Amino acid sequence: MSILSDIGGLIAPASVAVVGASNDVTRIGGRPIAAMRAAGYRGRILPVNPNRDTVQGLPCYPSVGELPEVPQAALVAVPAGLVGEVIEELGKKGCGAATLFSAGFAETGEKGEAAQRDLVDVARRYGMRLLGPNTLGVYNVGIGYYGTFSSSLDTGFPKLGNVGIASQSGAFGAHLGALARDRELGCSALITTGNEADITVADAIGWMAQSDGTDVICTYMEAINDAPALLKALDAARSAGKPVLALKSGRSAVGARAAASHTASLTGDAVVADAVLSDHGAILVRAPDTMMDIAYVASPKVFPVRHSLGIVTVSGGAGIVASDEAERIGLPMPAMPQAAQAALKELLPYSSPANPLDCTAQALNDPSLLEAFTRRGLEDGGYGAMLCFLTFVAGSKAMSEAILTAMAPLRRAYPDRIIAFCALGDRQVLRQYEEAGILIFEDPCRAVRALDAVLRLATERNGAAAATLAVPPVALPSRIPDEAQAKALLADAGIPAAPEQAVQTADEAAAAADRFGYPVVMKVLSPDIVHKSDIGAVRLGLRNADAVRAAHAEILAAAAHHAPNARVTGVLVASQLSGGVECLMGVNRDPVFGLVAVFGLGGVFVELLNDIALRACPFDTDTARRMILSIRGAPLLQGARGAEPADIDALARMLSNLSVFAAGAGERLISIDLNPVLALPGCQGAFALDAVIELDEQEAGNDGH
Amino acid sequence: MSILSDIGGLIAPASVAVVGASNDVTRIGGRPIAAMRAAGYRGRILPVNPNRDTVQGLPCYPSVGELPEVPQAALVAVPAGLVGEVIEELGKKGCGAATLFSAGFAETGEKGEAAQRDLVDVARRYGMRLLGPNTLGVYNVGIGYYGTFSSSLDTGFPKLGNVGIASQSGAFGAHLGALARDRELGCSALITTGNEADITVADAIGWMAQSDGTDVICTYMEAINDAPALLKALDAARSAGKPVLALKSGRSAVGARAAASHTASLTGDAVVADAVLSDHGAILVRAPDTMMDIAYVASPKVFPVRHSLGIVTVSGGAGIVASDEAERIGLPMPAMPQAAQAALKELLPYSSPANPLDCTAQALNDPSLLEAFTRRGLEDGGYGAMLCFLTFVAGSKAMSEAILTAMAPLRRAYPDRIIAFCALGDRQVLRQYEEAGILIFEDPCRAVRALDAVLRLATERNGAAAATLAVPPVALPSRIPDEAQAKALLADAGIPAAPEQAVQTADEAAAAADRFGYPVVMKVLSPDIVHKSDIGAVRLGLRNADAVRAAHAEILAAAAHHAPNARVTGVLVASQLSGGVECLMGVNRDPVFGLVAVFGLGGVFVELLNDIALRACPFDTDTARRMILSIRGAPLLQGARGAEPADIDALARMLSNLSVFAAGAGERLISIDLNPVLALPGCQGAFALDAVIELDEQEAGNDGH
Repeated sequence: MSILSDIGGLIAPASVAVVGASNDVTRIGGRPIAAMRAAGYRGRILPVNPNRDTVQGLPCYPSVGELPEVPQAALVAVPAGLVGEVIEELGKKGCGAATLFSAGFAETGEKGEAAQRDLVDVARRYGMRLLGPNTLGVYNVGIGYYGTFSSSLDTGFPKLGNVGIASQSGAFGAHLGALARDRELGCSALITTGNEADITVADAIGWMAQSDGTDVICTYMEAINDAPALLKALDAARSAGKPVLALKSGRSAVGARAAASHTASLTGDAVVADAVLSDHGAILVRAPDTMMDIAYVASPKVFPVRHSLGIVTVSGGAGIVASDEAERIGLPMPAMPQAAQAALKELLPYSSPANPLDCTAQALNDPSLLEAFTRRGLEDGGYGAMLCFLTFVAGSKAMSEAILTAMAPLRRAYPDRIIAFCALGDRQVLRQYEEAGILIFEDPCRAVRALDAVLRLATERNGAAAATLAVPPVALPSRIPDEAQAKALLADAGIPAAPEQAVQTADEAAAAADRFGYPVVMKVLSPDIVHKSDIGAVRLGLRNADAVRAAHAEILAAAAHHAPNARVTGVLVASQLSGGVECLMGVNRDPVFGLVAVFGLGGVFVELLNDIALRACPFDTDTARRMILSIRGAPLLQGARGAEPADIDALARMLSNLSVFAAGAGERLISIDLNPVLALPGCQGAFALDAVIELDEQEAGNDGH
Repeated sequence: MSILSDIGGLIAPASVAVVGASNDVTRIGGRPIAAMRAAGYRGRILPVNPNRDTVQGLPCYPSVGELPEVPQAALVAVPAGLVGEVIEELGKKGCGAATLFSAGFAETGEKGEAAQRDLVDVARRYGMRLLGPNTLGVYNVGIGYYGTFSSSLDTGFPKLGNVGIASQSGAFGAHLGALARDRELGCSALITTGNEADITVADAIGWMAQSDGTDVICTYMEAINDAPALLKALDAARSAGKPVLALKSGRSAVGARAAASHTASLTGDAVVADAVLSDHGAILVRAPDTMMDIAYVASPKVFPVRHSLGIVTVSGGAGIVASDEAERIGLPMPAMPQAAQAALKELLPYSSPANPLDCTAQALNDPSLLEAFTRRGLEDGGYGAMLCFLTFVAGSKAMSEAILTAMAPLRRAYPDRIIAFCALGDRQVLRQYEEAGILIFEDPCRAVRALDAVLRLATERNGAAAATLAVPPVALPSRIPDEAQAKALLADAGIPAAPEQAVQTADEAAAAADRFGYPVVMKVLSPDIVHKSDIGAVRLGLRNADAVRAAHAEILAAAAHHAPNARVTGVLVASQLSGGVECLMGVNRDPVFGLVAVFGLGGVFVELLNDIALRACPFDTDTARRMILSIRGAPLLQGARGAEPADIDALARMLSNLSVFAAGAGERLISIDLNPVLALPGCQGAFALDAVIELDEQEAGNDGH
């Protein structure tokens, strides 16, 4: 329930009541007042405390009701037991938003959770939005609003800039804020959402996506409490051209254990979250320093069209090290055109101007060489970004002026490219380059990684404009379908199986087999028997009608013997396909993101290597194709090892159709499992050889089990 | 040819001649003199220049011959054409070592390469060691010796410490030195080897391994010019307990192209280099910042016995993020014992003291909590390292004294463990912790990675004390053996094949098959036919004597038809094994490291996923077992997918025996290829089903082809 105006009032209020205001500037009720006064907050601060006439020199009011005006927002710093009452008073007064610093709610157990629900009920009655409880609060650097008790402000205020931070964890959010400050990276706002009783990190991202002043969004999440809102917020940020850098923690067993004890909420499947979040344009990071590196590159809002890097270096070694890293992470470094190389060779005979462009230590004495090599890289190489390795030389006062004089015009001449230096030395010297729009990195490999993340954006934005898919509703049967029914249902949705027929008698079986041609495969039909081959109820390679008749009897006998209580609805006779590549695809219901499709290759690829592609349903055929080609085993489908390539088009149609079917099937669908799916060579198609659909059974329930 | 005393004289000379000395402190012949005087070099500086009486205030001599004493080392800063003459003079004078700054040798092409060889010839005549040419030189911080013209000294001298840097690239080595200085990491020496006409980076590492003052060695390499010396130097460093952090560049296509143009030498196979260098104890890194992070952790020489991490955190979120990273890289974070958890819960009821030990923001107000949690981690958790996430709080002047007072005694009480803080803020504040022996990291994930690298050392050192293997000499045949001969040769060395016999006639074939039992496999024997099955000269699944006789004729006919010029020495009849897991193993001659063994699984694992383990020959069975278990597909051998585990013991013996055989075979061996090798289930053994040995043929040459 993200309503822009409400969140805006919370983050950029014209007036703020501080309930539980304190004279002590180290207390929760005292810190925000001190910070806002020190930062020159231009709104009105309205302390509330029944025991004081003034707080930190401001007039103080005995209660919310007695405030001389309606505060646009409130900070609540009272014991847990009093919070409900305060919200009630704020609601009556007409206050639209409250930040609840108070702890002692859902994070403490069931009783606290119930109390937290009560808070939301009260707030909803008054149309009031809540941040927290158990939140470190919010700050909005541009207007000097510090609705937070973070002690990070003891060591200074953030630098104003366009990087917004939205964090579930208060301490970690404050850490990110302090990290940005240490790096002199400008911030617009920090929003920490704490227990997320009402406002979630999705709302915070959504607000940043839509409000001026924030151009890059950094977010830290432990649990995703409102997946649809989060994806909507990510989409809004992408539409607004604002990169979202996401650190989703709780990936490991240890991490998940810690997260569970920390937030009392499930962290969900990290692999699914990765897939879905990056589908929606988020740049996934694992560490704060990576996040800040990328935010630093994105902050000037230069998003080059080309995903390519040129490196100019005064050290051959550094050029090689950086090139190694670029290749490792897939950042292209095309060579310079021959003519441009020749021109540079003429300028500096011992240079190696392919890419990396090694202009040798000579350039240290003559920055015009550096300029010439970089200009050629921009002009003739056309690289999206140029990284110049200048080490301690760029940081020396003796050289910096000449380098800056040579390079600053280049920065202005190519405003659509990124220019970065790898440089060491005095911070004050290096800051001059930054002021001229040149990025500064200490480490060449970190620079390469951060540049890559931003250079990928243009390409990925192009890929994002997929048309909205039509999702026709699917009428699921009331009970779990047997294999034949499942395949029929899927076939209607464009998910083909091999030619097959459900039969009752041995004669029907033989007739069907004659029609398909031999060999055929036969198996028992029963929604209650999942591992059919384990009990001998599957027969392969039946080569004539006699074998089919015999198999019919044996299969029914095996089923009766091993699963006497199973519902047996007949026997399935199917044409036995061979050749091609065995795959599997399916749909599972993720607790966070809902229906998620999975694709993988049969055999060791899934079982041993967990080599799968995931995506939230539904998605189109192009997307399905990208998923299929993204797995490590994809070369097997593309004709590795001398085989004819498999019908990837058919596979992609099938996978996309499966995702649309699942989305149309709705809430009752639990999972679909097509394993194996055979992708035949050439254009011969792809077929599900088995199909299991699990769903909530209506009426009848589970009595058949 | 590493001779300690020679190199020692070069790096720590009591007197140094500067040939080509200059008054201009920005010139190559002027910089070292200025630097040494500024740094208080205690040795004697002896400028040589025919045009001056004094240089930078020091008496100057017209020629080397006229020097008043024999200089222990010389710096040569004269044009390329004069270098030979200077070396001659130095040799005559009795100088033992010269650093050749002069460029214009091997890096410029063939002519320069010849000139460079001439320099070495002259030096050898006088028993003189050479550094360079085309080197940036050497510095030795402790004695103020700056035999270098690096402009990095313009912005300050290195801080004295125990980290040594050995780099082929001058500019990159200087960058590493400047990086260490920027981070206040103390250095002992920088040695840059340039063209490596004589002294290589291996000599530099060897010197650091054996000399006091250096405890951690950082090395940057592009090409490995003397592999045996390098491995010996790494072994010496390991014996001395000095970690070697190695950045080997030129891994990627772009990087290798750049390296080739930069050093005019082959960079070799990066995967082989990785395997061999880490076998010899090197810690491989890809980026300068990683190198410095690890050097920083290793520098205090605290190498804990346990490879485990405890995290104390004031932010639940940060604890999760760091735990995720630890799990990702395989750094164990075992949970605290229950009793210790209970004790901490009693101390701080809302804490989560499993591991990470979340002591909540409460610890920010009360550093005794921080101390208690950390102490419990060290004492009850027994972790090798403790990482405390304290963010900006540790960096605030208001808190730092209390934190230091609480934590410094702990540092002293557990001298065998590593204690690190993740902290932000004022450098001067943070330095106080470092002075108390507490490491400071900005980023929790970088901290985790650097700690892991050092925590692994104890475990890996234990593994390194392998007994020296006996390598009996192998008598290779003069000509390439056919399959049967190859298998017989290998069988003698403990590398078994399936029961098999080479036969001439159909009767002999049938008799052999009767003896083995059916089914059998048959193939043509010829050293000239490699892809036997492609021409129909392999037959599988022969189930009786008649089939064997027929196959005998067909195989010989196929060979005669498709390879009329091939030497056919008979037909091989072998028992056809089945079941088990198909593997491959072999030996190849690497241009840098010599004979290297490879192991992998059959099928997609090698062909598609490049899932292999490599190691220089020879190695023992334990090592072979570790190689086998290191591949991603190893679970297939260990009984994944419900299968019985394969005979990994037999496989390991076979692989080790193969490595010993190869080492014993010596220079004529080109490669051995056993593909497939079948590892049978249980204790049934492992057998080579095919064997190809390639070798340089003696006398006869290749006329048989």
